[in-house]
Amino acid sequence: MKTTTRTRLIDAAYEEIYSHGYQGASLGEILKRAGVHKGSMYHFFKNKKELALTAIEEKMRERLYSAYTSVLSSPPPYLPGWFSLLRDVTRRDFERGCPIANLVQEMSNLDPDFNRTMKGIYANFRASFKKVYDKAIASGELAACDTEKLSLLTIVIIEGAILSVKASGDVKDYTDAIDMLAEHVMQYQRR
Amino acid sequence: MKTTTRTRLIDAAYEEIYSHGYQGASLGEILKRAGVHKGSMYHFFKNKKELALTAIEEKMRERLYSAYTSVLSSPPPYLPGWFSLLRDVTRRDFERGCPIANLVQEMSNLDPDFNRTMKGIYANFRASFKKVYDKAIASGELAACDTEKLSLLTIVIIEGAILSVKASGDVKDYTDAIDMLAEHVMQYQRR
Repeated sequence: MKTTTRTRLIDAAYEEIYSHGYQGASLGEILKRAGVHKGSMYHFFKNKKELALTAIEEKMRERLYSAYTSVLSSPPPYLPGWFSLLRDVTRRDFERGCPIANLVQEMSNLDPDFNRTMKGIYANFRASFKKVYDKAIASGELAACDTEKLSLLTIVIIEGAILSVKASGDVKDYTDAIDMLAEHVMQYQRR
Repeated sequence: MKTTTRTRLIDAAYEEIYSHGYQGASLGEILKRAGVHKGSMYHFFKNKKELALTAIEEKMRERLYSAYTSVLSSPPPYLPGWFSLLRDVTRRDFERGCPIANLVQEMSNLDPDFNRTMKGIYANFRASFKKVYDKAIASGELAACDTEKLSLLTIVIIEGAILSVKASGDVKDYTDAIDMLAEHVMQYQRR
């Protein structure tokens, strides 16, 4: 499939920012990686910031969409597939950490546009997690429970566990934490 | 109490690094804040890095020690005091985040000395959390359970919840997450 100039810019910006943070990301490196001249970039994005915000937003929406549909497109029960998706360490890059957490950490206090964008992405993830738990209630897997709070717990544990692996160097911290999340959620299992 | 030059350097370095990260911290600013000449600093620390590593290590040991003893020095039950300490938002600076997480995030991949130091601090926190749960088993508050994993869950939820507040701007995310941690731990309550 022929990738468009815009897609190449988005992909290159995402990778460069994921590796070096927004402030450490070099626009020259992004353009080189994308094989795009600066002039062509300005056709799509007015500056590095607009490119960065669009890249993180689109890549995260894509990631969320594919995870979410892979779980909810199969027939119920949804939760076994959900927790095995969360538990899948091959989907994680523990060296670089979580792209959302990194940018929240680096930029949310420094720039109102980043603050707003990251807040929106974070809220989207939580809302999708909530939908999974709501569907699990609808399918009879879980009894009625506060899925707003379970979705908070889910994102909190994912983010905390990724950080834990970065600190300890032990990937088992991640899987152990996800197992405890699953155990916590399954308390609400309908019996 | 008269503070020593060394203490003033540690305090100033800690504050400057907490606010700006290690790479963003200015040695000049630290010296100014501490009211210490560069020459005097070299009497105690060979460079910015040694000062930084010592500062984070000592300040975190102090914080951990005071939290830990405040909980375990009272007679049992320990867990109500423990969760109310964790839940106390006045002990947190959500704007700046968690000083440990910030440095793990910024430096663990870049520098082996930071990697080792942060790994040690992180492990110390986990070990102290485990001691609280072990004491709660000894005092009959909890039935026998895997306190190694509960201590992992505790640090994971604290770190993830602090990040969540940074992303959402809502401190309730933190207290809700701690409440779910308490609920999870109290499953093991001896009845």
